[in-house]
Amino acid sequence: MSRAFNFCAGPAALPEPVLAQAQADLMDWQGKGLSVMEMSHRSDEFVSIAQRAERTLRELMGISDDYAVLFMQGGASTQFATIPLNLLGGHDCADYVNTGIWSKKAIAEAKRYTRVNVVASTEADNFTRCPDQSELKLNPEAGYVHYTPNETIGGLEYDYIPDVGDVPLVADLSSTILSRPQDINRFGLIYAGAQKNIGPAGLTLVLVRRDLMGRTRPELPTMMDYSVADKHDSMYNTPPTFAWYLAGLVFDWVQQQGGVQAMGELNRRKAERLYGAIDSSDFYGNPIQPRFRSWMNVPFTLADERLNSAFLAGAEERGLLSLQGHRSVGGMRASIYNAMPEAGVEALVAYMETFEKEKA
Amino acid sequence: MSRAFNFCAGPAALPEPVLAQAQADLMDWQGKGLSVMEMSHRSDEFVSIAQRAERTLRELMGISDDYAVLFMQGGASTQFATIPLNLLGGHDCADYVNTGIWSKKAIAEAKRYTRVNVVASTEADNFTRCPDQSELKLNPEAGYVHYTPNETIGGLEYDYIPDVGDVPLVADLSSTILSRPQDINRFGLIYAGAQKNIGPAGLTLVLVRRDLMGRTRPELPTMMDYSVADKHDSMYNTPPTFAWYLAGLVFDWVQQQGGVQAMGELNRRKAERLYGAIDSSDFYGNPIQPRFRSWMNVPFTLADERLNSAFLAGAEERGLLSLQGHRSVGGMRASIYNAMPEAGVEALVAYMETFEKEKA
Repeated sequence: MSRAFNFCAGPAALPEPVLAQAQADLMDWQGKGLSVMEMSHRSDEFVSIAQRAERTLRELMGISDDYAVLFMQGGASTQFATIPLNLLGGHDCADYVNTGIWSKKAIAEAKRYTRVNVVASTEADNFTRCPDQSELKLNPEAGYVHYTPNETIGGLEYDYIPDVGDVPLVADLSSTILSRPQDINRFGLIYAGAQKNIGPAGLTLVLVRRDLMGRTRPELPTMMDYSVADKHDSMYNTPPTFAWYLAGLVFDWVQQQGGVQAMGELNRRKAERLYGAIDSSDFYGNPIQPRFRSWMNVPFTLADERLNSAFLAGAEERGLLSLQGHRSVGGMRASIYNAMPEAGVEALVAYMETFEKEKA
Repeated sequence: MSRAFNFCAGPAALPEPVLAQAQADLMDWQGKGLSVMEMSHRSDEFVSIAQRAERTLRELMGISDDYAVLFMQGGASTQFATIPLNLLGGHDCADYVNTGIWSKKAIAEAKRYTRVNVVASTEADNFTRCPDQSELKLNPEAGYVHYTPNETIGGLEYDYIPDVGDVPLVADLSSTILSRPQDINRFGLIYAGAQKNIGPAGLTLVLVRRDLMGRTRPELPTMMDYSVADKHDSMYNTPPTFAWYLAGLVFDWVQQQGGVQAMGELNRRKAERLYGAIDSSDFYGNPIQPRFRSWMNVPFTLADERLNSAFLAGAEERGLLSLQGHRSVGGMRASIYNAMPEAGVEALVAYMETFEKEKA
């Protein structure tokens, strides 16, 4: 068996020790005679797995008891509706910042439930940057302010947390959760699909400040109600137990690596190495303003697009997988989440240099 | 490693060959150098896994192209809202049959969105039976008729499919899907949480007749819209890929066993053996009318409830797990889904006889 370097944007590579543990446990967890995925979610064994995962995440991210940590389903796309339906009771509008494809999806779904104020957009700059704080035309009466700290497709990442006064700040942290230290207390609500930095697809983490609960719209499905999930420890019905268990193993692994501080240092080095290689050559390009380049998702183009297929084929031969850019933008994209080791980035850079020498 | 017999109602035991395959594949699927859970859902590899699973399920259940097969998230409890929000456009009421705890949950959620006609209830009989066809007071103007073919907690199962005329019939098949031959064409919509007869928790199957799409309520979240899921092959966003892959392995396994016909024969034998043991002794009891006893969930009581703890402790010592009844009803419950081999039922019956001899 030879493990490849997998640059997929999501579902993404998982840490090898996590997969090895899951493989060892698969048919018989700790000698109990059954798989984690066969356990009752109400058994002592699974409840201890679930609680441990939450506890470790709270430690890693510095999450206080003011916040509920919810293990939900449906991905970030389900949250696009869940958020307005939970937070807008008593408010008739919400503020949204538009920085690309994922912002737009969040805005489109929110518009089905409320008036949306697009308080800043960098579309005129072709989404090559995030707005500055001074550009945000915030509305004090908004139910919340939503933004997308990292645009997975565009490869754009804020280098600051917006100051939105007393209005709750809501953030899609799918790609950047656990990737560096973040001050959770600045947020009213954070959500993240698991399939990038947390675990397998099918699990969605929601951190919500408890004072924001109870602002629900009447049409909210019970299963999407944060206060119901909180009251039942995310077990109002059967949760995705195996994904939850894997998330716990990933949290343990992050802790063993030194936590989010160490992750941030590693991710900075990886990103600098890869952007450095792109910038040092006219053969490759990345259009994002350096200040706003994502540490997690690195899109790049070949000056000669006719070489794209040859680049991808050669990469795959060397075990560098899933480098094709999103179908909506083309080009290349290397997603280098926590689980991507520096050796993977080095292998990619070495291949890029070789390919350029052969073809330039 | 010694695998126990796991009688959990869900998440439930999976077939051992399925777990063995998943374990072998876990770090490197077919020499591709990555786990299934690390694959892009849009990769050729995963799309082939996904399509194969759907194809096998269609073969097993005889599902025609008139029906969409959707791989969704959120469990049956999410469907309790998804169903009225999808099917009630243009209708102001729905018919529901009440046969126990899961019926009641479906009714409670539907009432949040529409007028519910409870067209029959066996609560006066303490849910020891299902209603007869002649008891159903159906409304021709209802948007649909919902019933629960198997009550997982009560241990109650219909031995017939209700005739509801031209109104679409909607059924929660969570516990009984693939457990015996069923005439799919009698239903407008079937839904099933995966964690009993299909795979791990976190995946929900929905089979919906395509002519029923487009009857949505405006407040329906996009991610819960059957027509959106259908149009995007259940990949409007990232689906729970690993659960989907495991479901495919389970479908292959069912096919290897001889399909739902063979499953039905096996399940009948298992149920007859266990109910026979219960009925042959005054030490054990089951209150359900024999005609309506579930083949999948077999609740039973000890005449002397003070022996419950000793019974459960002795069972666990012998590797007979999760026999405790649901916390809302107490007593015992043996769930004997497809993956429970006859040897497991034999081991349980042998233990029950031994325990009775010791304690009676």
